[in-house]
Amino acid sequence: MVKTRQTGATAPLGFTAGATACGLRQSGALDLAILVSKLDCTAAGLFTRNEVAAAPVILDREILATSSDRIRAVLANSGVANACTGPVGMEAARATQLAAGVSLGCGAEQVLVLSTGLIGAHLDVDKVGRGIRQISKHLSETGGSEAARAIMTTDTHPKETALRVPIGGGEVTIGGMAKGSGMIHPNMATMLAVLTTDASIAPSDLEDTLKAAVEKTFNRITVDGDTSTNDSVIMLANGASGVAIKDNQSLATFAEALQQVCQHLAMEIVRDGEGASRFVTLTVSGAVDEAAALRVAKTIATSPLVKTAFAGGDANWGRILAAAGRAGVQIEQTKLALWLEDEADGELQLVEKGTFAEYDVSRITAILKAPEFALRLDLGLGDAEATVWTCDLTHDYVTINADYRT
Amino acid sequence: MVKTRQTGATAPLGFTAGATACGLRQSGALDLAILVSKLDCTAAGLFTRNEVAAAPVILDREILATSSDRIRAVLANSGVANACTGPVGMEAARATQLAAGVSLGCGAEQVLVLSTGLIGAHLDVDKVGRGIRQISKHLSETGGSEAARAIMTTDTHPKETALRVPIGGGEVTIGGMAKGSGMIHPNMATMLAVLTTDASIAPSDLEDTLKAAVEKTFNRITVDGDTSTNDSVIMLANGASGVAIKDNQSLATFAEALQQVCQHLAMEIVRDGEGASRFVTLTVSGAVDEAAALRVAKTIATSPLVKTAFAGGDANWGRILAAAGRAGVQIEQTKLALWLEDEADGELQLVEKGTFAEYDVSRITAILKAPEFALRLDLGLGDAEATVWTCDLTHDYVTINADYRT
Repeated sequence: MVKTRQTGATAPLGFTAGATACGLRQSGALDLAILVSKLDCTAAGLFTRNEVAAAPVILDREILATSSDRIRAVLANSGVANACTGPVGMEAARATQLAAGVSLGCGAEQVLVLSTGLIGAHLDVDKVGRGIRQISKHLSETGGSEAARAIMTTDTHPKETALRVPIGGGEVTIGGMAKGSGMIHPNMATMLAVLTTDASIAPSDLEDTLKAAVEKTFNRITVDGDTSTNDSVIMLANGASGVAIKDNQSLATFAEALQQVCQHLAMEIVRDGEGASRFVTLTVSGAVDEAAALRVAKTIATSPLVKTAFAGGDANWGRILAAAGRAGVQIEQTKLALWLEDEADGELQLVEKGTFAEYDVSRITAILKAPEFALRLDLGLGDAEATVWTCDLTHDYVTINADYRT
Repeated sequence: MVKTRQTGATAPLGFTAGATACGLRQSGALDLAILVSKLDCTAAGLFTRNEVAAAPVILDREILATSSDRIRAVLANSGVANACTGPVGMEAARATQLAAGVSLGCGAEQVLVLSTGLIGAHLDVDKVGRGIRQISKHLSETGGSEAARAIMTTDTHPKETALRVPIGGGEVTIGGMAKGSGMIHPNMATMLAVLTTDASIAPSDLEDTLKAAVEKTFNRITVDGDTSTNDSVIMLANGASGVAIKDNQSLATFAEALQQVCQHLAMEIVRDGEGASRFVTLTVSGAVDEAAALRVAKTIATSPLVKTAFAGGDANWGRILAAAGRAGVQIEQTKLALWLEDEADGELQLVEKGTFAEYDVSRITAILKAPEFALRLDLGLGDAEATVWTCDLTHDYVTINADYRT
């Protein structure tokens, strides 16, 4: 597996993309993107589990139920989430979908739509319509990067990646872009992501592979515990490489590469978490099963007290144990052990048998002041473990979400 | 029912209290309190559901299992939580309990202990011992206020109240003190509170009445969603008023008064939430049952995005709907309605049928900039409702928890 020279959603063969500033964002930043495949794609999508789902999520679920073997394009906008917009919002989603289909020469039911931005604001379909005309004139094989910029909201930089992997005598590329910075919490899919591949793969295999990859990556990140109304992960496979993913070995190789692509994008989202100054890899081990490990890990990863201690670079391990204790999982506090991973020195033990181990406070504090570190909490009850990625809770998070409307 | 002239835990007959600065808090603030009854008390206690429970919580559970009909005193300290301290912590709790009993002339098993402060630090039993000697010399019937100060940590002011209520031809007083500012989240009991009464009441009736009152008050407040290792609510009834609470009518009157006392203290904790600048009463109505209403209310009340919007005085109702949607309760988004309560004008509707109602933004914003306001979300599915109290998430919360050790 190698990283491709060109990253992003247009790295696989047969995909083009473009973007424009159609006026949805007052800043004048790029806010509309189109990704197009020259061939019909097999498609799969995973969407928010939030009961308050945005219009584009409702529409995409309809489309994928009937047309998942012939998707051609994705229309994505930032600035406006088109969520909580009632029947008017559904009309807007359908109208822009149709406009994109007409402009690209395919059916409306071959276009998936994604929106992200302010909840409760209406999508200006005239602006989107003019934007679609603009973009369709300059779609290009290097347009993925522009598209990745156009779906940003409070993100500080675009997120894209691609991998090339030999499979079954040929070569397949998997690419993708994602956005996400706030309202990030693992529950199905937790932001917008568009993944592409030039492999050929059956719809059910694509969906299974995508689900497995998302479960271990996008569903294991958290910024603030809030699950968005618009979370969507969409994957398109156009077969342009001539390589078909059918046998078990090809499927396993493809699945591993896809998980790597997803993990890269997921970690990028946490690194770019709203106001984040620390990126923390948190593993819970010694659990009776993976579900218990994951539940404890997520409770710690979303605790405001733990996250503010991370912000302060404070070795306040008591808050980590307290968060573990309220996770709703049985714990024996006298078996708890906590380690801080250090690249230079290996694991440094902070907690032993539920209480403080002897440790060098200045050395620990130095590690905790670094922008990235890893912690492992062992429950001492079994062999299962789970890893999640989280960030700290800083003044800038409050500034971004209290002082400005997002 | 009338408020008593003297507030707090020593307002009921037969209780004295005192406090001192024994050196557990580096600031030199009061950090040790003793509350004593001249008569044996019926006692009940509700403790944290956190699996990581502090030594004093473990000890009090033992004591109440055997001696709940003859409790005489409560020993409480701030500065050190005596949590995650292993066998050494249990020994410290037992030693200070015994010292208090000896000093007050009762058995160790007649003393309940409470600790609050830094998790993982050891209790200095010598300091506590010297403090007990100090306090036992100046216990007084007006010492409740001093005791309420001594249990404060990041609290900005002491929290106490008392009510006098005619019952069964006599008069009964219920008093109480509480502390709590951070690590506040409804799960059994969510801070320290000591309630007292001069009524006589059977242990089982006291426990039932206390549970019911706590469920509707302390269990319905949240500051940051973190449940402490030390949360305890203790109630002592010494019978000094000569009034026995036995028949159903007396029990109902007593229960109502106790709930009022608990609600006052609970709301004071939220008003004094770490960094809080807004106090928000949030009601979820139109639910199929109370459990569903409560679950939605708590999810909204703990959402970082909702709480930062409160901090900004921003009418960002989309975040409220998004939080409701991820509560794990079935919701029909087209039935959602949201109102802001205005003392002058009654209810102002923000959301109708899941999308924005026509409203006057400047009027709404003016209300949201006030230090206290009330919101009601109607799910449109049934007749059940629940109310919780929460606060905003501000820069000061981050400052308190990131920049200092608590």
